[in-house]
Amino acid sequence: MSTPKVLHITARDNPSLQRLRKLSQDAAAYRKLGSVWLEGDHLARALLQRGQQPTLAVVSEAAYAEPALRELADAAPRVLVLPLALFKSISGLESPAQIGFEVAHVAGLSPLKGVDSVVLDRLQDAGNVGTILRSAAAFGFRQVLALKGTAALWSAKVLRAGMGAHFGLRLVEGLAPEDLDGLDLPLIATSSHAQSQLHQTRLPSPCAWVMGHEGQGVQPALMQRCGLTVGIPQPGGEESLNVGSAAAICLYESARQRLA
Amino acid sequence: MSTPKVLHITARDNPSLQRLRKLSQDAAAYRKLGSVWLEGDHLARALLQRGQQPTLAVVSEAAYAEPALRELADAAPRVLVLPLALFKSISGLESPAQIGFEVAHVAGLSPLKGVDSVVLDRLQDAGNVGTILRSAAAFGFRQVLALKGTAALWSAKVLRAGMGAHFGLRLVEGLAPEDLDGLDLPLIATSSHAQSQLHQTRLPSPCAWVMGHEGQGVQPALMQRCGLTVGIPQPGGEESLNVGSAAAICLYESARQRLA
Repeated sequence: MSTPKVLHITARDNPSLQRLRKLSQDAAAYRKLGSVWLEGDHLARALLQRGQQPTLAVVSEAAYAEPALRELADAAPRVLVLPLALFKSISGLESPAQIGFEVAHVAGLSPLKGVDSVVLDRLQDAGNVGTILRSAAAFGFRQVLALKGTAALWSAKVLRAGMGAHFGLRLVEGLAPEDLDGLDLPLIATSSHAQSQLHQTRLPSPCAWVMGHEGQGVQPALMQRCGLTVGIPQPGGEESLNVGSAAAICLYESARQRLA
Repeated sequence: MSTPKVLHITARDNPSLQRLRKLSQDAAAYRKLGSVWLEGDHLARALLQRGQQPTLAVVSEAAYAEPALRELADAAPRVLVLPLALFKSISGLESPAQIGFEVAHVAGLSPLKGVDSVVLDRLQDAGNVGTILRSAAAFGFRQVLALKGTAALWSAKVLRAGMGAHFGLRLVEGLAPEDLDGLDLPLIATSSHAQSQLHQTRLPSPCAWVMGHEGQGVQPALMQRCGLTVGIPQPGGEESLNVGSAAAICLYESARQRLA
């Protein structure tokens, strides 16, 4: 491992800090700035475990004095060491994590054909989106395709809820319904009006599970592309499920049928 | 339907408003004050649909001029009509809902024996707790037992995430692990070290699913009371699931086996 270049920073207007502040505060800033801010040692370690590299580590003076966090920071080619007050100015957390990585963001990916996928149709809640990314990674659905209007996948909030799942997935954003036409995958949506129930349906494999907007559900132009709709059995009555819960159940059922 | 007593309020220090402000701002205030604040027409309607009654409706002047919201407010025996600025002072939302109910809170419930249950062991995140309440209601697990240290079940945030599921459930809070000993139910926990996998295990019915703290999992004194532990199959690798997702999967699998 080569020795990183370490800089001690005390100036609030340091250009790197200004950039990280934007990334931390503006959910979609990574699209313009070309990099992503990963706050906290959990996300930083998850990145390295996937064999990926940061461009920059940022660490508080106190954290850089702890061997384990110092070793983590030194995995980056450049390390900025800051007083805690300055670290707080780039943190999106109530209790700042004291360490973070900046990572180059690859934009403009296109969907891969025939790969098990989850399609997100204008999901609004960052927590829901991150939760679904975790479920997708756990059940081996390696591609997530987000339609225009979905919460920015690489925002700090979605990263936090994703707990590192991002780094094992192919994430494509900004899609329109017609962009899914060349996927060579059957699209499946859940619907309370579906004629067949999830647990009684032989699910196609591979496939793409479609999850819709928290209030409005799946938009018509996408629903008409779904070859299959299924209902999730709800013996308790007509309660509705959170979309993250619905996604977890559908992905589990796909995995269960494949393992059976 | 009897005609409600309608009061137009313009004083910030009206005692009812002061009480509702506390309920809105302090997650556990309902335990002292003996009532719960339901903000938004969705929660208000969900309460009425379950045949339950508010003690008070609070509504903005603009909302009270709309027939549908006026009818909803008039379901309460007392209605406070406020200028929007005053409604905002009791709202926990960025976009205040303009209508809400106060409901009497019944404390000190004890667990019912032999009823399908979900046990929450010190869950911290209000969104996770509300999401699990929705799943419990959907899959017919009518009792939720929260151990000491779990996010307050009737707080505004959990109510919001619960989307009305609260009103169809028996909710018991403040329990210790030994309080579960008289339940007459097998306790089941998930564990990555479990010898059997969820989809290959014949699940007992009725049962109590145990969900643990987001970081620490299930505490030892509770885990040793679990007669069964199962792993959720994760063909994608050793990713971890959000606890709300894990709960949804376990409850679905119980329902699936019963329906099969």
